[in-house]
Amino acid sequence: MGASSLFTEDRSAEIVVASLGEDTEPRLKHVLGSLIRHLHAFIKDVELTNEEWEAAIAFLTETWQACTDVRQEFILLSDVLGVSMLVETINNRSLDMTTESTVLGPFHMVESPPRELGDLIALDGKGEPCLITGRVLDERGNPLPHAQVDVWQANSEGFYDVQQPETQPHRNLRGLFTADEHGEFWFRSIVPRYYPVPADGPVGRLLRATHRHPNRPAHVHLLVTAKGHRPLITHLFVKDSPYIESDVVFGVKESLVRDFAHVDDPVRADQLGFSNPFRAAHFDVILLSENGQETDR
Amino acid sequence: MGASSLFTEDRSAEIVVASLGEDTEPRLKHVLGSLIRHLHAFIKDVELTNEEWEAAIAFLTETWQACTDVRQEFILLSDVLGVSMLVETINNRSLDMTTESTVLGPFHMVESPPRELGDLIALDGKGEPCLITGRVLDERGNPLPHAQVDVWQANSEGFYDVQQPETQPHRNLRGLFTADEHGEFWFRSIVPRYYPVPADGPVGRLLRATHRHPNRPAHVHLLVTAKGHRPLITHLFVKDSPYIESDVVFGVKESLVRDFAHVDDPVRADQLGFSNPFRAAHFDVILLSENGQETDR
Repeated sequence: MGASSLFTEDRSAEIVVASLGEDTEPRLKHVLGSLIRHLHAFIKDVELTNEEWEAAIAFLTETWQACTDVRQEFILLSDVLGVSMLVETINNRSLDMTTESTVLGPFHMVESPPRELGDLIALDGKGEPCLITGRVLDERGNPLPHAQVDVWQANSEGFYDVQQPETQPHRNLRGLFTADEHGEFWFRSIVPRYYPVPADGPVGRLLRATHRHPNRPAHVHLLVTAKGHRPLITHLFVKDSPYIESDVVFGVKESLVRDFAHVDDPVRADQLGFSNPFRAAHFDVILLSENGQETDR
Repeated sequence: MGASSLFTEDRSAEIVVASLGEDTEPRLKHVLGSLIRHLHAFIKDVELTNEEWEAAIAFLTETWQACTDVRQEFILLSDVLGVSMLVETINNRSLDMTTESTVLGPFHMVESPPRELGDLIALDGKGEPCLITGRVLDERGNPLPHAQVDVWQANSEGFYDVQQPETQPHRNLRGLFTADEHGEFWFRSIVPRYYPVPADGPVGRLLRATHRHPNRPAHVHLLVTAKGHRPLITHLFVKDSPYIESDVVFGVKESLVRDFAHVDDPVRADQLGFSNPFRAAHFDVILLSENGQETDR
């Protein structure tokens, strides 16, 4: 009997990795091999006890029990451990020249209705009025005419329309805009509020056990696309929002935070159909060209 | 705004670990901190793609969908990744003087019926007859009188009684024995067969994708207890069993493998009520004293 193939504490990861067949698809083998090595290293580092292993299995079991058709507790777990954000970041490195990405989140579940530039997307009129303006540019600063800007956000109470189907108008605070020939876009909305991720399941218990709050700071989601450029999923964060420095899913990047300025201008407010004063934010989005200099890392 | 608290690829693990509150129970903080560091290191090592992250979430989702009251796919996943065995080994280091442990497995779900030494536990008489003998000793080689030896095993087709409630007798191939005043135990059984773990779920797909077979080599489970000594969960493995060198859950340790010798002895067979020839295996079990020299590491 070849003892070298049998389990020992010292060689545990090596032995498990060696069990992966030669004909395994190379990338799968590479990823699984690394996962096994890191998982075993973790267990050895902390000398995980049987009771802790049982608690981990119970936690995963409760995590699946919390999942439903409209709730994905595993994604939430990935989010609060910074895993989702890390994967997003690795796969969308900006090289400091293009706009940084952040997580998609679970609320882009319905199509945004096409809107005209300048439209008001706060269909119930509730909340602090806000003008959002920006440009879509390539990495050389040239405008990208007719780029598509898909936006969605929470209301002033921190809820998306799909979370309050009874009380919010259909497709409230969502819009699909087409930038003008100068790559410019603008629309009227309200200032979103921060909100908690679902904290009534096992992930919520994990947050409480580690003395973490469950909140995401206020933000507007953007999904920006233009021909010949890589689509960008990002957020525009409200600078003075609570939790801006402690987003529970680690989504905040400094480059994505903007001042939502308080504007006191009765004439402009009247033009916009806003009460005075109102808020205003500007956010330029720089996309990576698919065939440009930046596609190579 | 303190940029130092915001997410960056380089500092991702550090930032997530820093989010764990100061008042977190120290061991939880230590274990979670290590888990986060290793998880992030894994993702960076392989530069996990968005598609691979989605596949991982889908895999975990399918894993929970495969779970039922009597099937724990997460434990199976832990088993085939060598995690269960590593945790078991770390928590039961034998120091080369006591009998090594291995995994408990999922089939100790019912109580073994008390039996007299020498009893036949193969209640349906099917299979190749086998005499199993052994002694329970302390680490100095002294017998442990009246130690309890709980045994359970698969039948000659590779199934436990609980898997075949219609065709196997109630509590077939299970027994709770009390060693004699010399720490000796013996009972009559049959040679178990190797068997596959459940391979019709996501873990089975993982095994197929990595060109691994789903089988465990033939073994008899033992749970041995004696006053003043640490309980031992282990297996007695059948030396010539298929898959002895490639147990899908990595449970085999060389010290636990025994020759199930072919015995051609008509007189002895007749005494045992066996047909001739029959099989015989001997397995001495050395327990760790709870207050002895070996409890300190």
